[in-house]
Amino acid sequence: MDIRMIKVGIVGGTGYTGVELLRLIAQHPQARLHMITSRKEAGMPVAEMFPSLRGHVSATFTDTATADLTQCDVVFYATPHGVAMADAPKLLAAGVKVIDLAADFRLQDAAAFEHWYKMPHTCTDLLKEAAYGLPELNRAAIGAARLVGNPGCYPTTMQLGYAPLLKAGLIDAGSLIADCKSGVSGAGRKAELGMLFTEAGDNFKAYGLAGHRHHPETVAQLQRLSTDPVGLVFTPHLVPMIRGMHSTLYARLNAAGQATNLQTLFEAAYANEPFVDVMPAGSTPDTRSTRASNVLRLAVHRPAGSNLVVILAVQDNLMKGAAGQAVQCMNLMFGLTETAGLMHIAVLP
Amino acid sequence: MDIRMIKVGIVGGTGYTGVELLRLIAQHPQARLHMITSRKEAGMPVAEMFPSLRGHVSATFTDTATADLTQCDVVFYATPHGVAMADAPKLLAAGVKVIDLAADFRLQDAAAFEHWYKMPHTCTDLLKEAAYGLPELNRAAIGAARLVGNPGCYPTTMQLGYAPLLKAGLIDAGSLIADCKSGVSGAGRKAELGMLFTEAGDNFKAYGLAGHRHHPETVAQLQRLSTDPVGLVFTPHLVPMIRGMHSTLYARLNAAGQATNLQTLFEAAYANEPFVDVMPAGSTPDTRSTRASNVLRLAVHRPAGSNLVVILAVQDNLMKGAAGQAVQCMNLMFGLTETAGLMHIAVLP
Amino acid sequence: MDIRMIKVGIVGGTGYTGVELLRLIAQHPQARLHMITSRKEAGMPVAEMFPSLRGHVSATFTDTATADLTQCDVVFYATPHGVAMADAPKLLAAGVKVIDLAADFRLQDAAAFEHWYKMPHTCTDLLKEAAYGLPELNRAAIGAARLVGNPGCYPTTMQLGYAPLLKAGLIDAGSLIADCKSGVSGAGRKAELGMLFTEAGDNFKAYGLAGHRHHPETVAQLQRLSTDPVGLVFTPHLVPMIRGMHSTLYARLNAAGQATNLQTLFEAAYANEPFVDVMPAGSTPDTRSTRASNVLRLAVHRPAGSNLVVILAVQDNLMKGAAGQAVQCMNLMFGLTETAGLMHIAVLP
Amino acid sequence: MDIRMIKVGIVGGTGYTGVELLRLIAQHPQARLHMITSRKEAGMPVAEMFPSLRGHVSATFTDTATADLTQCDVVFYATPHGVAMADAPKLLAAGVKVIDLAADFRLQDAAAFEHWYKMPHTCTDLLKEAAYGLPELNRAAIGAARLVGNPGCYPTTMQLGYAPLLKAGLIDAGSLIADCKSGVSGAGRKAELGMLFTEAGDNFKAYGLAGHRHHPETVAQLQRLSTDPVGLVFTPHLVPMIRGMHSTLYARLNAAGQATNLQTLFEAAYANEPFVDVMPAGSTPDTRSTRASNVLRLAVHRPAGSNLVVILAVQDNLMKGAAGQAVQCMNLMFGLTETAGLMHIAVLP
Repeated sequence: MDIRMIKVGIVGGTGYTGVELLRLIAQHPQARLHMITSRKEAGMPVAEMFPSLRGHVSATFTDTATADLTQCDVVFYATPHGVAMADAPKLLAAGVKVIDLAADFRLQDAAAFEHWYKMPHTCTDLLKEAAYGLPELNRAAIGAARLVGNPGCYPTTMQLGYAPLLKAGLIDAGSLIADCKSGVSGAGRKAELGMLFTEAGDNFKAYGLAGHRHHPETVAQLQRLSTDPVGLVFTPHLVPMIRGMHSTLYARLNAAGQATNLQTLFEAAYANEPFVDVMPAGSTPDTRSTRASNVLRLAVHRPAGSNLVVILAVQDNLMKGAAGQAVQCMNLMFGLTETAGLMHIAVLP
Repeated sequence: MDIRMIKVGIVGGTGYTGVELLRLIAQHPQARLHMITSRKEAGMPVAEMFPSLRGHVSATFTDTATADLTQCDVVFYATPHGVAMADAPKLLAAGVKVIDLAADFRLQDAAAFEHWYKMPHTCTDLLKEAAYGLPELNRAAIGAARLVGNPGCYPTTMQLGYAPLLKAGLIDAGSLIADCKSGVSGAGRKAELGMLFTEAGDNFKAYGLAGHRHHPETVAQLQRLSTDPVGLVFTPHLVPMIRGMHSTLYARLNAAGQATNLQTLFEAAYANEPFVDVMPAGSTPDTRSTRASNVLRLAVHRPAGSNLVVILAVQDNLMKGAAGQAVQCMNLMFGLTETAGLMHIAVLP
Repeated sequence: MDIRMIKVGIVGGTGYTGVELLRLIAQHPQARLHMITSRKEAGMPVAEMFPSLRGHVSATFTDTATADLTQCDVVFYATPHGVAMADAPKLLAAGVKVIDLAADFRLQDAAAFEHWYKMPHTCTDLLKEAAYGLPELNRAAIGAARLVGNPGCYPTTMQLGYAPLLKAGLIDAGSLIADCKSGVSGAGRKAELGMLFTEAGDNFKAYGLAGHRHHPETVAQLQRLSTDPVGLVFTPHLVPMIRGMHSTLYARLNAAGQATNLQTLFEAAYANEPFVDVMPAGSTPDTRSTRASNVLRLAVHRPAGSNLVVILAVQDNLMKGAAGQAVQCMNLMFGLTETAGLMHIAVLP
Repeated sequence: MDIRMIKVGIVGGTGYTGVELLRLIAQHPQARLHMITSRKEAGMPVAEMFPSLRGHVSATFTDTATADLTQCDVVFYATPHGVAMADAPKLLAAGVKVIDLAADFRLQDAAAFEHWYKMPHTCTDLLKEAAYGLPELNRAAIGAARLVGNPGCYPTTMQLGYAPLLKAGLIDAGSLIADCKSGVSGAGRKAELGMLFTEAGDNFKAYGLAGHRHHPETVAQLQRLSTDPVGLVFTPHLVPMIRGMHSTLYARLNAAGQATNLQTLFEAAYANEPFVDVMPAGSTPDTRSTRASNVLRLAVHRPAGSNLVVILAVQDNLMKGAAGQAVQCMNLMFGLTETAGLMHIAVLP
């Protein structure tokens, strides 16, 4: 094949976002894994940790401390918050593009970052340059960027769900309510009591009502779409499923909104988007209809006897909510077809 | 034991509400199963259908068509809608009390019943007499009643969650939003494609946005607590768990509400209720903390930067949401201790 | 693309095997869906039934009664038993190849078929011609065949697990014990009480001990590998998971077997097989390491203090156990690369 | 109530066995919790850790280091291995009975203990005195004991399954195969990667083939029932369910065994046992039929065309497999009715 293959580096490939990136890159027609690093697992074959990759990924974890990532064309950070910003200046200086799947470059406001993530931001000068990696709302900037902050999973659903309404000025921006539900993989591959099968299974609960880090990110981005001040109440919940996210988004329609055909509005808004699927009127999308695919599906409802609109948004939190979206950004950053390596059909059942 | 044992009849004991009633009655200190009927399973030992009851329930299903239920002290209807109202007049005339776990006596408004349940109501004269079986809001009437319409599962959570706020006039009654999530047993023991393990497992979805039968029931009951017109948007969702219900209830606080200590309000409202547990401030209750018990737990939240109150309500949909509540009503109707036979501790994990 | 695309027909595409075939064919580089039929769903777009296929499959179900399948190059039968044999003679006569995913062509012995499937076999003359579709053990015959009987899911694991041992004469063929466990999708997309989430969830049970249809199929095939009479006790169990099959295979090693390095034996046996992965010694493969992929993984164990060998075999029952294997057969029948369209990496988590 | 209440101490009540003991003791008619200790959680109310106990258990964790357990009548150790043997001499000397739910007193052979548990046994003199706490096979000794080693969960199923056959000399004791499956709670309440919902969910795997600690315990106990040397291959598996254990037990029948009515044998063997339920011939018991109850159910099968017997044994691993069995032992040790506080009906669904 004479197409040039993009050399991909992955830092921190031992979590769920990491293994999903590996699955995508291994099957991508124009990218190949050049290097993968880990602090703890240096020397271990990747496929030993993730047997699903046997026969597809022959790489071995390189020690993060000694790895020379400047040979890569792009480096994905599937790490805890704070790692990417430590490396980014050096990589960018070496001409390597950077996509951070953590939060280091999601918030333009360094003070907000420091408040929510409890650490100083060490390269605030790069914040302005960083593109927010939601292609449907920020495609041009991503295409031109060297540095992308990949969105959080919840924020992706909230932004794509509210965007057409906010852009058209059809809702009260100040009284949004997002009741969101996530599968357990959203909590990451960390040994925590509350995420045990025996704790999270056959159970349902809310969490994070006192403040969730995806709240400031979402408000900041939604504010870009509205001249009115955005007010958002966001309630995340934990669902006993592995992958999948379902956001039930409520907003009050103003007079213009009540007079608008919202189904038509949404269909038009996303008509050319390969990864946003507006379902037929009356639909109630299953999260599983997106499992292992990069598609986010939306349905629009108008409950009888109220002036509310209810948007249902489903996605795979590890794909459109994380790794799939990051690869979509990579495609844009390198001028590839946006859908390259991302047309996997959802696995159902 | 010299205590008189209440003779219990169960009509339609082959569903999940039925088997739960059997579990409760078999362990109740002052009630015993006198007769259980089934159209299809006449002659089959109950414990053959439900091996969990082996050694505890020796009864055999009697044919519904020929069973003489007038020998019972009370008959529970764990049947499809429409069955109880066909039998109730005759049983009441014979001095037998009736508790319907379906919807025949939930709605006072016969026209509303006929609209939502697509069948004529055949004993509208009994509607006025029927008590709505939510003890915490209607204890006296239940204690005096011959006929009880046991509440729906969702309505129980919504009423107990909103009641203190509506009674005190602290919220905008016209803009309630209830985002509710139910385990799959709520759909009943019926062979339906959508409820297969392979369909409902590892999945999450909304349903019933075009109108759910629990909506009119809830609005009618909430209206009794408020002088302002009640407006409610109710979005049910299906959770891949067996038992359990979680309602996330949103309301806008008025000036008085914003000035009130809501935690104190809720604690006072339910201080003497054995089956309503107001959790400490900041709690996010698990549904599993109620599994197989008759307790409903509530938590009160005030999201920062908004005038909303968010109430989290969890229960076991088959217990406080159905069979447990029905037994609680029975206890009241017969002057027993309200908690008799209902103090099972939740099964966790 | 100048490669000729194989025109695929699917009869009965409304079950789990059907939707999995659709997922595979839609992404296959050398095949395309030409026609899909259904008795009940004629006129419905396929993607309306399976929203996961939206954007990938634009076909509509054709009425089975009127569909002209002779325009296809190959027709897959993802139907109940008995359907393929009714159509096969006509299709073969028209030059169309046939792959039956049901049991019509799995058993060479028509009497055995009739005993186990309770229906007469209507084209016994074709039985001799039909190739048994397990490529690793029958590749040449499949490549030359017009008609393939695709193996059952359990038989695939048992054959690939026992084959190296039987071929080498290392075990007592007469005392095999296969303790097998299947995810619920193995029961098909049928509304059955026992397969409800509320029944099969958080539960485990054996079934079919009085005789399972995969028993005669497996014994007949294993017998081809051994000169000694094969005796097999087969105990299937139902696991609360959607996809996945785990067979724990016990056999008694004879003197030669006890003297053999079994790990080496297995690695050699499958060294060139793209879809059989012999894991390193000591492994205990997860079913999920095969989820949505066509790989079957094996691990070989010798419990201390016994003369037993224990083989662990895992696969995705809908892939290597059904649709993936059928596409693998199609590739062979048409002279394509055997792995074409089948290199999907397992979805983990 | 004038019945004397047994004062119960629990050491290590923060795991699943601990919370189950708490549920049982809180509802036991003749026992009450006197003290519960924890190294890490001293000062925390028990019901804060386990909200399911709110309203039922008002106790607070006492510091293990300073707690005076000699005031108790009996102390349960729901701790890691090695804790009970450190305390037992002192407690026994003070007249306190001890029931260890870990392994300190399961193995009579101190060397075997030290081999399998990697620690020295510090009170080998007590080993001879300790009774093995499986009432159905060792009732008299338990009734007379001051010190009980409560059986492992797997060993309970294997012993009750094989006992009637071994006692009657009907099987080849040297070639037993036990293929066992456990819910995830069997792994305890520990933050381990492999037990995360995202890892263990929708998945099935074997483990421990290189040697499991329940193997020597089971062999030692089975050996007491047979004059022939016992040989056992034991393969544990992990099932994506919370509670429940299913053992599929294989044995070769000798001539006498093949001539015996095994259903009758089992029914006679357990006719008077309140917690062992021999199911009707042909049954395949669900694990859920025992959920949260102390019953173990057995079914006996004779596969056609073989000389094998297959016993299916199901139980709740936290009840008959742990806490329920321990309370059953307590009842015997104090001369109470054996079933006191243990007649909970299984929770289904």
